[in-house]
Amino acid sequence: MTASGEDALIARYFKPIATDAGAFALDDDAAVLKARGADVVVTTDAIVEGVHFLPGDPPETIARKALRVNLSDLAAKGAQPAGFVLTLALRSAEDGWLKPFAAALGEDARTYACPLLGGDTVSTPGPLTVSVTAFGRVPADRMVHRRGAQPGDRVVVTGTIGDAVLGLDILKGGAVATALAGDEAARQMLIGRYRVPQPRNALANAVLAHASAAMDVSDGLAGDLTKLCAASRVSAAIHVPGVPLSRPAAALIASRTVGIDALITGGDDYEILCTVPEADFEAFAQDARKAGVAISPIGAVIAGSAAPSFLDERGRELALKQRSWSHFR
Amino acid sequence: MTASGEDALIARYFKPIATDAGAFALDDDAAVLKARGADVVVTTDAIVEGVHFLPGDPPETIARKALRVNLSDLAAKGAQPAGFVLTLALRSAEDGWLKPFAAALGEDARTYACPLLGGDTVSTPGPLTVSVTAFGRVPADRMVHRRGAQPGDRVVVTGTIGDAVLGLDILKGGAVATALAGDEAARQMLIGRYRVPQPRNALANAVLAHASAAMDVSDGLAGDLTKLCAASRVSAAIHVPGVPLSRPAAALIASRTVGIDALITGGDDYEILCTVPEADFEAFAQDARKAGVAISPIGAVIAGSAAPSFLDERGRELALKQRSWSHFR
Repeated sequence: MTASGEDALIARYFKPIATDAGAFALDDDAAVLKARGADVVVTTDAIVEGVHFLPGDPPETIARKALRVNLSDLAAKGAQPAGFVLTLALRSAEDGWLKPFAAALGEDARTYACPLLGGDTVSTPGPLTVSVTAFGRVPADRMVHRRGAQPGDRVVVTGTIGDAVLGLDILKGGAVATALAGDEAARQMLIGRYRVPQPRNALANAVLAHASAAMDVSDGLAGDLTKLCAASRVSAAIHVPGVPLSRPAAALIASRTVGIDALITGGDDYEILCTVPEADFEAFAQDARKAGVAISPIGAVIAGSAAPSFLDERGRELALKQRSWSHFR
Repeated sequence: MTASGEDALIARYFKPIATDAGAFALDDDAAVLKARGADVVVTTDAIVEGVHFLPGDPPETIARKALRVNLSDLAAKGAQPAGFVLTLALRSAEDGWLKPFAAALGEDARTYACPLLGGDTVSTPGPLTVSVTAFGRVPADRMVHRRGAQPGDRVVVTGTIGDAVLGLDILKGGAVATALAGDEAARQMLIGRYRVPQPRNALANAVLAHASAAMDVSDGLAGDLTKLCAASRVSAAIHVPGVPLSRPAAALIASRTVGIDALITGGDDYEILCTVPEADFEAFAQDARKAGVAISPIGAVIAGSAAPSFLDERGRELALKQRSWSHFR
């Protein structure tokens, strides 16, 4: 008997990247993850065609985004990647799509030391959906939570904020596309930030060592900070001019193509947002430098139950119509 | 600020059933699973509307099927359930659907001691898709594999085979629907077997103690046994009259409404298929009785690389056109 279509597909594309001993070469019904005395951190995020990525996006970037949005969660929790499982809902199994998808996934699995442990491939008449459940390890009872921020802590973000929402606008042919028509490098950089997040796993140990609370920025800085503050039962004051922007993003703000509110409420940044006690800040900054991850202090945790304030260069509060993106309103 | 739609939805329906300490009341970006010195067994299976369940199936049965197909994998691997994460891709968030879905899921989570640890809810324009990744615990390096069957071992299945494919035929208004038009009890039993699998988690310890190889029957007995034999590098001879059938299934065979081949190649049984060394068989049978799970020996593992043979009451080999169901051909 020849292998059925699904088995052949899995064997051809995913077996070569399932190199971890616990994956049993994808020949079994389940995988084994060794906790090695650590707590297993579990996170799951799905990306849907037309919602989280665009129809026609390259298979390589879809693969990387599916894994990296989960790696970003692990990093923000202070966990080291341990592996992942993949559920792929496909309309059809096409070599031309699956081959580069699996190759890019395998490359990222190696880069981030997060091996493919198993998965499920199902047919769907609907949009392509890639669902990843990723695992990490943290020392027992040490996972970094959204709760834990204390008044006086610094509020810190990694990288730059708002690039991905600008990249999406370019792909959709919006105002940003027009404004950057002559600057292909900037266009490609912003599109890349939308399609392929750069998870800050290099910073996980520094977050584990120094952050009082952390999460990754996926639904917009303003909304995600609001969630972190709510979980920690604190508020925060953010100095908006301190929010780190890329050169193209800063230029688009200066030319009034977009407002800063669009950048701090747009999603898909996949940067780490964390709070760090003042006494730890220098050590954290030093660890971040060693890790090669740019960090920016953007404000302070304050007491109170109000949503965080975003203050402009004159100390005026920005009015944010909508703090983050939601699937269902 | 009010919570966004997605957060409100999660809070309303899923927080009440996420009672495990490691779920952090779904207020964080990740969950913690304690391995407790065991190996963590990981399995993932998605069910898609129109593929694994029918549009219009009750939300309660969709929830139970999504979790139970994964529980069935854990049972076959000899693992005790430890928790699960859920990814729900929905067209819209409707109270009338989500409330019974979450309630049934919570009930099963309690029944099987498999708590909800986290999840992701995304919008999709496509079919409803429920993806579960479930975790179990087995003693270190003791997971029961597909490989391991030895010539001379008994081949054993739990419960009855073929009911689910008959239930699906009824729901689709096929020949079985007509034949059983006057027998509502039989119709409902078979439909129930399609919609709500009965995973054999009560047998997990017996499988762990005695089985040389095991898997659950999800794609059809013939095809799944072929996979188990291939992984174990053995063959098998199955005495088809020994394959356990429910009363309605046996009657449908007797009336020639369906052939036995349809039952042993149909999918969705979610019974355990395992091989047990002859010396262990009595102890296994005794443990199964104690666990309240019916088991039937259906044949023997034999040496060789041929696909397993299915022999009728006169020892003639059945010709099976297609051994199991596949998503992609």
